[in-house]
Amino acid sequence: MNDTQDCIVLLGDSLTQLAFSPDGFVRRLSEDYVRKLHVINLGLGGYNSEWAIPVFEQYLPKREVQQYLPKMQLLVIWFGANDAIVPQPEYVHSVSASALASNLRRLVNMVKSVESPYYSPWTRVILMTPPPVNTYQRAEDLQSWGLGLDRNFDKTKRYAEVVKDVGIVDAIPVADIWTNLWEASGKDEHTLSKFLTDGLHLNADGYTIVYNELMNVITDKYPEILPDSLNTVFPIWNQLGISIDPLALLQKRDVFAA
Amino acid sequence: MNDTQDCIVLLGDSLTQLAFSPDGFVRRLSEDYVRKLHVINLGLGGYNSEWAIPVFEQYLPKREVQQYLPKMQLLVIWFGANDAIVPQPEYVHSVSASALASNLRRLVNMVKSVESPYYSPWTRVILMTPPPVNTYQRAEDLQSWGLGLDRNFDKTKRYAEVVKDVGIVDAIPVADIWTNLWEASGKDEHTLSKFLTDGLHLNADGYTIVYNELMNVITDKYPEILPDSLNTVFPIWNQLGISIDPLALLQKRDVFAA
Repeated sequence: MNDTQDCIVLLGDSLTQLAFSPDGFVRRLSEDYVRKLHVINLGLGGYNSEWAIPVFEQYLPKREVQQYLPKMQLLVIWFGANDAIVPQPEYVHSVSASALASNLRRLVNMVKSVESPYYSPWTRVILMTPPPVNTYQRAEDLQSWGLGLDRNFDKTKRYAEVVKDVGIVDAIPVADIWTNLWEASGKDEHTLSKFLTDGLHLNADGYTIVYNELMNVITDKYPEILPDSLNTVFPIWNQLGISIDPLALLQKRDVFAA
Repeated sequence: MNDTQDCIVLLGDSLTQLAFSPDGFVRRLSEDYVRKLHVINLGLGGYNSEWAIPVFEQYLPKREVQQYLPKMQLLVIWFGANDAIVPQPEYVHSVSASALASNLRRLVNMVKSVESPYYSPWTRVILMTPPPVNTYQRAEDLQSWGLGLDRNFDKTKRYAEVVKDVGIVDAIPVADIWTNLWEASGKDEHTLSKFLTDGLHLNADGYTIVYNELMNVITDKYPEILPDSLNTVFPIWNQLGISIDPLALLQKRDVFAA
């Protein structure tokens, strides 16, 4: 598809990849923005922020071809859950807290920096913090696969703080998923099982919190891109059905026009 | 997003637009094809096949820019439900059976004809027949809005046959939604309410039939594009996690490569 309809991009790990599920936040965004903005799921199960860099470079259009392509009106970046894995000899998954911060800055600067070959000044950016881990639930799940616990509560909490710090220092809005889930669980690690399937991934109620927090940040920071603020690219049928020349009305519109 | 990941396009009316719902067929395709093909919902509520023509012309990339854009690997065209409306003075909705056939051919030829400015020889096409109408349910729903019945059973059935005929004459695979829903209802118009919300639109069970029939046609006619036949564009994490140089593996792959 060409530049007729712009897009929202969700870049993240399995928490994003799995979110086309019936209650997933990418599914809900897709429904909210239908006929307004394409919603693109760039979720990469098991990836950390380091592996995301070469992938995102390949997905982003370079300046010289941007004119032919949907404009990325909103970019949501959600890493940290895999970066925070506890280093294990058989996997090279884990990323240090300082590397998470610099990787997030690199991802953001790909679109924000005027020096970037992918510079995209119209792109709004939101960072999301990883969810808290329920290590009791996670250990039980991994044990059923013959594996040991691979994460700990405090490290994931620290990585969530790293994401928030990047947002504060670089003035990028943050959807604080960690804090929202933690507070919804009454600040009790055991109770997090209300929102997690396996101690790490989100169930329907967990995704509802993600969706609500993301929409809150959009409402607060980028209200012009709320679904109700946008036109459909093409007119609603009943504007056509009463026209004597409906074909004349079937021209692409600016979704942001008042 | 650029040409790194190709796409599937669903072009249709409200039956497509609404199908990002939890049980909708576009939602299910989005989940099936995540990381393999973007699934693009071009559903236009209330539109008929005539209004779709100028819209689709604006969404399709012309030959000279196709190299920069996702390739449309599959196009599903689903019209007829609004074309079959009974003509009414206040709306210019309805389209004749012969115009439906020629409009469908025009839509298909935009991508299939070597003379088209949008010629796209790699695009597989599937036509879908409109669902049968339950006029009892539809009349009741419209009455609650103070409106009279706007469709009849036999006309929609005839329009479904028009779609099938186009498929036979032009050798385009058809997902016969009409017949599948009709048989699932025991060939009883009243019983169609098991699959319809308002006599016209589909509920969860109705969309399940749509999804299953579409996947059956893909399995039968285009098995190479079944989700399980395709690679993810970027490798699965556990192929990276055990590598001494994961970044070297993070190159875009051909989803069709064996």
